[in-house]
Amino acid sequence: MTATAAGAAGVPAPRIDHPGLAAKLMSADDAARLIPHGAHIGMSGFTGAGHPKEVPAALARRIAVAREAGDPFTVGLWTGASTAPELDGALAAVDGVDLRMPYQSDPITRAKINAGQMDYVDLHLSHVAQAVWEGFFGPVDVALVEVAGITADGDLIPSSSVGNNKTWLDLADRVILEVNSWQPPELDGMHDIYYGTALPPNRRPVQILQAGDRIGVPHYHCPPEKVVAVVATHEPDRTTTFAPVDETSTRIAEHLIDFLTHEVERGRLPRTLLPIQSGVGNVANAVLANLDAAGFGPLTAYTEVIQDSMLALLRSGTISTASATALSLSDAGLADFLDNLGEYRRRIVLRSQEISNHPEVIRRLGCLAMNGMIEADIYGNVNSTHVMGSAIQNGIGGSGDFARNSYLSMFLSPSTAKRGAISTIVPMVSHVDHTEHDVHVIVTEQGLADLRGLAPRRRAARVIERCAHPDYRDALQDYVDRAARHAPARHTPHLLDEALGWHGRYLRTSDMRA
Amino acid sequence: MTATAAGAAGVPAPRIDHPGLAAKLMSADDAARLIPHGAHIGMSGFTGAGHPKEVPAALARRIAVAREAGDPFTVGLWTGASTAPELDGALAAVDGVDLRMPYQSDPITRAKINAGQMDYVDLHLSHVAQAVWEGFFGPVDVALVEVAGITADGDLIPSSSVGNNKTWLDLADRVILEVNSWQPPELDGMHDIYYGTALPPNRRPVQILQAGDRIGVPHYHCPPEKVVAVVATHEPDRTTTFAPVDETSTRIAEHLIDFLTHEVERGRLPRTLLPIQSGVGNVANAVLANLDAAGFGPLTAYTEVIQDSMLALLRSGTISTASATALSLSDAGLADFLDNLGEYRRRIVLRSQEISNHPEVIRRLGCLAMNGMIEADIYGNVNSTHVMGSAIQNGIGGSGDFARNSYLSMFLSPSTAKRGAISTIVPMVSHVDHTEHDVHVIVTEQGLADLRGLAPRRRAARVIERCAHPDYRDALQDYVDRAARHAPARHTPHLLDEALGWHGRYLRTSDMRA
Repeated sequence: MTATAAGAAGVPAPRIDHPGLAAKLMSADDAARLIPHGAHIGMSGFTGAGHPKEVPAALARRIAVAREAGDPFTVGLWTGASTAPELDGALAAVDGVDLRMPYQSDPITRAKINAGQMDYVDLHLSHVAQAVWEGFFGPVDVALVEVAGITADGDLIPSSSVGNNKTWLDLADRVILEVNSWQPPELDGMHDIYYGTALPPNRRPVQILQAGDRIGVPHYHCPPEKVVAVVATHEPDRTTTFAPVDETSTRIAEHLIDFLTHEVERGRLPRTLLPIQSGVGNVANAVLANLDAAGFGPLTAYTEVIQDSMLALLRSGTISTASATALSLSDAGLADFLDNLGEYRRRIVLRSQEISNHPEVIRRLGCLAMNGMIEADIYGNVNSTHVMGSAIQNGIGGSGDFARNSYLSMFLSPSTAKRGAISTIVPMVSHVDHTEHDVHVIVTEQGLADLRGLAPRRRAARVIERCAHPDYRDALQDYVDRAARHAPARHTPHLLDEALGWHGRYLRTSDMRA
Repeated sequence: MTATAAGAAGVPAPRIDHPGLAAKLMSADDAARLIPHGAHIGMSGFTGAGHPKEVPAALARRIAVAREAGDPFTVGLWTGASTAPELDGALAAVDGVDLRMPYQSDPITRAKINAGQMDYVDLHLSHVAQAVWEGFFGPVDVALVEVAGITADGDLIPSSSVGNNKTWLDLADRVILEVNSWQPPELDGMHDIYYGTALPPNRRPVQILQAGDRIGVPHYHCPPEKVVAVVATHEPDRTTTFAPVDETSTRIAEHLIDFLTHEVERGRLPRTLLPIQSGVGNVANAVLANLDAAGFGPLTAYTEVIQDSMLALLRSGTISTASATALSLSDAGLADFLDNLGEYRRRIVLRSQEISNHPEVIRRLGCLAMNGMIEADIYGNVNSTHVMGSAIQNGIGGSGDFARNSYLSMFLSPSTAKRGAISTIVPMVSHVDHTEHDVHVIVTEQGLADLRGLAPRRRAARVIERCAHPDYRDALQDYVDRAARHAPARHTPHLLDEALGWHGRYLRTSDMRA
């Protein structure tokens, strides 16, 4: 049966093979009218992939109108992770978001949060689905989910990210679907949607034994009667621009690969390594790029996001299989992806983020976790989220899921920021996201500090020697020396009156240097 | 076949039914002579239960003699968790420990660590076995393990704690056994030793679906040829003295039980709750004591340690089954345990600590985690390990394994310490063990703060209102008010120049109050 219902623009609706759902086609503005003030909305979207493209902006327009009429109108905005300006940006710009969770990277949203005008709850990505199922955030009033198509049975073909979509669709009272014909139809079959989750005491083991294992089905199930609107779109995902790989990133990558080589030689890692997890960003991209020539393999990846460099590793055969919850590609990466979709489809699995980030699976597989950071301290605590202790940057994302449960937990950053005015190695981090108990390795362009098995004072010596920028090394050593003499104890010697003094100095003078 | 070999004292060796091993009976001093300088020793022992009773002191004597002769002699001391004065205390007193891990609560050891004279690595208890298997700490040279008996087949009957014993026995080059005839023979059959662990990429799901499930065998396997010494002992475990339940602990317990009752009424918890995890100490003991009258049940426990109050709950039928890795009883608790061993044996499972604390199992079961703390801050970060930022108290133990993976993560403490001179609710904790992402609930005798779904500023308001002692409430509010005006951002507003000022004031004046 072929859909014959007409879309808002009067053209045949694409990829909606279920007549009942095709009959619910409407404009984005009409769909947005179905969302009331105060609604908790579970939206699709992860790293700018697979988010709804039109209804959020229509909702923002509706909110602006209500606001002008003096009516209150805010919503709870829950997603997989970060989205794009037409979603986070549009809703934040009209002060339409009451509470945002679990992750964002949008400039307007960030500004509103740091101005104290928007509530933000920054969650481990593996915790989101269960926290909502458990009722910790209240009901999911509306699910607003982009899909790549609707089958004749009414099943939903996932889009370029999975995130928490299964949870939103399962729990929502009302479902609004955006069917995006820009998404390649060949995505169909790439996903693995696991319907075996449950609340305790009824949980069962998640039977993934290898990164590429499939334990679910390719489509979302959703009772058609819950769907209140279907909107046809043809809009691209947000693509990511990567900086060209620079010398700093290359040196970080080289230190990391030397270390992995050493671990293989010592027999602590197999030559096929263990499944790679790689955070998002330029440094991570550089590390993956350098892995190709390192002689390991064939590797696998069990990670959150497929970036350009991961595609390159799949193409070269260095990586055989990659599991993630989203694609996050540049324009060039996207072109390559589309050109070779048949091949990638066999070797990429896109899962719900509660599975891509599941502690059980990450620990079982023994991932090699590589994540960026804002700063680390001499004792091995890592700050991933806050600038100078008070301002949110993005959020913890999945870094905690992976750092705590991986075989090796590695954090990467240039040793300085702001042209040297900030040292990313400090006496005490201004916010802790990963504790001393969870950090094995810190890498900067200066070198790599392997902190395994070291008591805090020895970690400090190694971090200063290996990771700190020379401009800051003496000052760090001076802190350590004086702390050793004057701190009230010598397990983790700190001078509390000045432990955060570097940050205070930066706030006053825009430079951490004395 | 009955053992006929004579023990060191010339009396028949008890409970050593394997003749080859009975032939290796020797004195503790002779056994200690088999441990060389520099050895990494994996010892049994968890919360003062099941630790070796005689060889450590003999080793300490040997070390003292070597030291007097001018010879270096230190060992790496690895255990399950805390032990007793005759182990940790004796070895620390002679400066015999090079590196201690993963947990301690011994006064002499603590003093040496805080004097900078002993290295201490404070690990999540679930991480210990895998870190050693992975080679992160180097080889296990000697396993020194207390057992309750040796079967005719040479299998080892575990003692009153399991801890990391399976790992030490599997990995050690040389094994020294203490067979302690003080341990009740009825312990045999209570344990569940899981031999299905592996290193990645060969790990499989841990198939525990309910707290009481058994997936292993009752005994340790150990090739008899690895055993270099067997020492017969008859020495009690360290018993724990609990303070009488006081008003403060009772009020904490009441707040917590009111909260659980509320969660049941809201449908967010079943009336049988979910498996209880309870930390060690007086407050935890009080909470369990109060659970008996609360009308929940039948409950289960999936925890580290069985304390007196857990026995009482088992006896009353409020708890049907309890899983742990150790017993930690008072004299009275021990007498009760011995009097009713037949019944307890059916309802208690003692496991390896990598299983009792396994993230996979804790998350699957959805535990209710209740742990003590040193301090919490207004934004929900918790310090479990460091006094005034520099001095180690005990260690993180299993609190992180449970807090991160449980259904509810709750931290409990009186609101003040040192007769009011310390507020346990502070602007910023002086060390972070549990981040804002991992803490659902904070409870003091003043009240309970449910932090789920709250952005940081709202958490601060609730923690101050519900948990802070009235003597400190105004000062905390003043900090929050000024931070809201002067902090560089309002997501997590902090004044870094004074965030740790309360601790600094205490160090100078012995009082946090201005």
